[in-house]
Amino acid sequence: MKKMLIGLHLGNGYGSSPGAWRFSGVNPQSYTSYDARVQQAQAAERGKFQFIFLPDGPGAIMADIESEAPNFNLDVMMTLAAVARETEYIGLVATGSTTFNEPFNLARQYKALDIMSHGRAGWNAITSSGNDVAANYGKIIPTSAERYGRAHESIQLIQALWGSWGKDAWIHDQKTGYFADKDQIVPINLQGKFVGSRGPLYIPPSEQGQPVIFHAGGSPNAHELAGRFANVVIGAAFTIEDARAQRNAFRESAERHGRNPDEIKYIAGLMTSIAGNRREGLDRRIILTQHLFPQRVSYLQQMLGIPLNDKDLDSPLSQTLLNAARPSPYDPRSSHALKIAKEGWSLRDIIAHGVIDYHPVIAGPGIEPADHMQRWFEAGAADGFWISPDVNFDGIDAFVNEVVPILQQRGLFHQDYEGKTLRENLGIPDQYGVDPRV
Amino acid sequence: MKKMLIGLHLGNGYGSSPGAWRFSGVNPQSYTSYDARVQQAQAAERGKFQFIFLPDGPGAIMADIESEAPNFNLDVMMTLAAVARETEYIGLVATGSTTFNEPFNLARQYKALDIMSHGRAGWNAITSSGNDVAANYGKIIPTSAERYGRAHESIQLIQALWGSWGKDAWIHDQKTGYFADKDQIVPINLQGKFVGSRGPLYIPPSEQGQPVIFHAGGSPNAHELAGRFANVVIGAAFTIEDARAQRNAFRESAERHGRNPDEIKYIAGLMTSIAGNRREGLDRRIILTQHLFPQRVSYLQQMLGIPLNDKDLDSPLSQTLLNAARPSPYDPRSSHALKIAKEGWSLRDIIAHGVIDYHPVIAGPGIEPADHMQRWFEAGAADGFWISPDVNFDGIDAFVNEVVPILQQRGLFHQDYEGKTLRENLGIPDQYGVDPRV
Ligand SMILES: Cc1cc2nc3c(=O)[nH]c(=O)nc-3n(C[C@H](O)[C@H](O)[C@H](O)COP(=O)(O)O)c2cc1C
Ligand SMILES: Cc1cc2nc3c(=O)[nH]c(=O)nc-3n(C[C@H](O)[C@H](O)[C@H](O)COP(=O)(O)O)c2cc1C
Repeated sequence: MKKMLIGLHLGNGYGSSPGAWRFSGVNPQSYTSYDARVQQAQAAERGKFQFIFLPDGPGAIMADIESEAPNFNLDVMMTLAAVARETEYIGLVATGSTTFNEPFNLARQYKALDIMSHGRAGWNAITSSGNDVAANYGKIIPTSAERYGRAHESIQLIQALWGSWGKDAWIHDQKTGYFADKDQIVPINLQGKFVGSRGPLYIPPSEQGQPVIFHAGGSPNAHELAGRFANVVIGAAFTIEDARAQRNAFRESAERHGRNPDEIKYIAGLMTSIAGNRREGLDRRIILTQHLFPQRVSYLQQMLGIPLNDKDLDSPLSQTLLNAARPSPYDPRSSHALKIAKEGWSLRDIIAHGVIDYHPVIAGPGIEPADHMQRWFEAGAADGFWISPDVNFDGIDAFVNEVVPILQQRGLFHQDYEGKTLRENLGIPDQYGVDPRV
Repeated sequence: MKKMLIGLHLGNGYGSSPGAWRFSGVNPQSYTSYDARVQQAQAAERGKFQFIFLPDGPGAIMADIESEAPNFNLDVMMTLAAVARETEYIGLVATGSTTFNEPFNLARQYKALDIMSHGRAGWNAITSSGNDVAANYGKIIPTSAERYGRAHESIQLIQALWGSWGKDAWIHDQKTGYFADKDQIVPINLQGKFVGSRGPLYIPPSEQGQPVIFHAGGSPNAHELAGRFANVVIGAAFTIEDARAQRNAFRESAERHGRNPDEIKYIAGLMTSIAGNRREGLDRRIILTQHLFPQRVSYLQQMLGIPLNDKDLDSPLSQTLLNAARPSPYDPRSSHALKIAKEGWSLRDIIAHGVIDYHPVIAGPGIEPADHMQRWFEAGAADGFWISPDVNFDGIDAFVNEVVPILQQRGLFHQDYEGKTLRENLGIPDQYGVDPRV
């Protein structure tokens, strides 16, 4: 039976909920603590997660800095380097923008990570889309066509650099004095419209040959890029229908590029607040996010098209209001928000359900995320999930102890790592040499 | 009494001598071994070295790849990340080219290293000068004026990003919910001719405030750049006179920029082959480099302006030849080569003395490098030395066990680390905030 894949979102060290840095038990210095990051990755490895995923793309920080930690890792590659040496099996995946990096620098850094981790590196090859990010580079953001044009060239070039040493090129035979086989090392000499490189790279293959390409993005340009190059897509979808449509778009693009659609895995997002029961889960989320309630009430008004009073958080919405509510067509989370409201929860609890969050939110006992994941997986909506615990400090362990065993019992998740490389654990073939597809 | 500084050159994992990868006892896979790098850094830390230095700037590799390892680290920052977590005191310094990196990316990576190492990072801010390096970026090398123009802007901008969080900006008070003090975080809004950034960076100060600026380069442009920004200069000089002239050029430039010249430390290079006595040292170097002898004999011919026969390595040069020899004015090593030849060594031993190497070479017992270093230090030729052992596997330990104690006994080198940050150990003040000099 096909099994699902699970990744852990490793961000700023605290967790993905606002207020996580203040939560009880959390070290307030986790933002700068590499010990914390390593422990969190180790917790995910205990749970047999296939990978950790570190988003990147640092934009403006001033708006919320007085009350919130920036969402970023101090530096994703430095974090992965630390984790690489203190874990053994888990895949190490970070975003590296094709828009604001020299391809040669990306190539060597991810390949070095791949060597250092003995074949566990993945590169989330994205285009940056925020003008606030561009401003940190003294630039404005290029058009989508330019960004994706540069992305196609960059990935092609980087894969060629990775493949520039053949599988057995590195001889290192002390007796004969033969260090490397020149015939198996090829300069790449690629010069495109946006980027170029002579090569070769100076790094031999890792245990998996070269890093795995991930992608994250929602536009037709993103489908096209991922269909050509990616093995894994980091997705964001609120409903099974939406996720399935996204997954199919990527699969179809892979087919158009002459690939087997099963070579591209679509990974949906999920945020968890695991607790003994629903009530405790909601209370946990209320503690975390209560400072944001006024703002979220006003946002919920727009989602439902009805007036709401942030001074009266204790009452459920009146029948009159519920009848008048119209889910906004501009926010895909609106129907779910209305469904929760109709269940009779108080305004506070409606919001605590996470109806205004980046991904579906499950607040409750371990069986609830397990059920959610099974439902989506069996509906063809995802090949796996990337988990954003509300608070990493205890939220990763909770997932590992309470969700993973259920998924394993149900035969939905592997009992143990299949191997030591990311490719083995994702079930995709090793890759050596310059990509035959390009 | 003023003490000298010592750094370790950490390159490709084998050592700085050709043939090091084949030497007895060496793991031939050290090129890709992060364990080896970490052990080597730990060995230097046992010897109280102030820093390890990782050059970078990967150019063409094809010419020697059949018999020699590339001189590069797989990725200098990934190596330093590994070392940071497995050492406690030693400074972590790597080259990062201002020519082929986005300043914002350099800023965050070195600052992350500084956080991760608790204040031990240094950035060797250089301009790339090789067309073979430029080709890996699909470019040709810019003019010196352009390279140094971009370097000035990049360092200014990066120091501003590093300083964009004031010393006490990061509050992280869980009780009050106050994460950071907005008034102590300043966007930088620098836009130059070559690079720009809005900032601020999203990383608070480290235990030393921010990384230390190093520089390496020999031109007047290099003096100017280092005099403005650098605290340490990584040098290369073959004689006391040459080193003193270089050191003075940097000191004078610092003064022109309104700084105390003692704020800039000139570090001379030294290659060591430590052995029980001179004969054993030479034999060690013969084993390492004998495959290069034909090539080196022909080079020595040019240095001395006399015909030499690479089939007769066992004899000293005849008196007739010695009388005819004229040290080449184009190679600063020529007089030293002639001096060694006149001592009566065989042609093989003359070359084994390292008369054709990147730095002065000492082959012999520990007291010889100690004497060399004392002489240079007391002559005002250097504030310290960066050591390139022939073979790292045993050459670092040999230096630590046999040279360091002599220097300590003579009061020339510290007995122990002064503190835990690189700035403390170099004797330079912490740096917070946007650099007042710019
Ligand atoms: C789930 C998900 C994760 C993403 N992660 C990142 C990231 O880590 N860094 C980043 O700069 N952009 C990230 N993006 C943004 C995309 O790379 C892209 O810029 C954005 O979706 C705009 O897409 P488009 O240009 O294809 O329309 C992410 C997008 C999605 C959907
Ligand atoms: C001792 C020393 C170390 C150097 N290390 C590096 C290095 O690690 N990476 C690099 O690209 N260039 C390095 N360089 C080269 C200089 O950065 C510079 O490009 C070169 O000396 C040309 O200098 P100029 O442009 O000032 O004439 C080094 C130079 C010296 C003298």
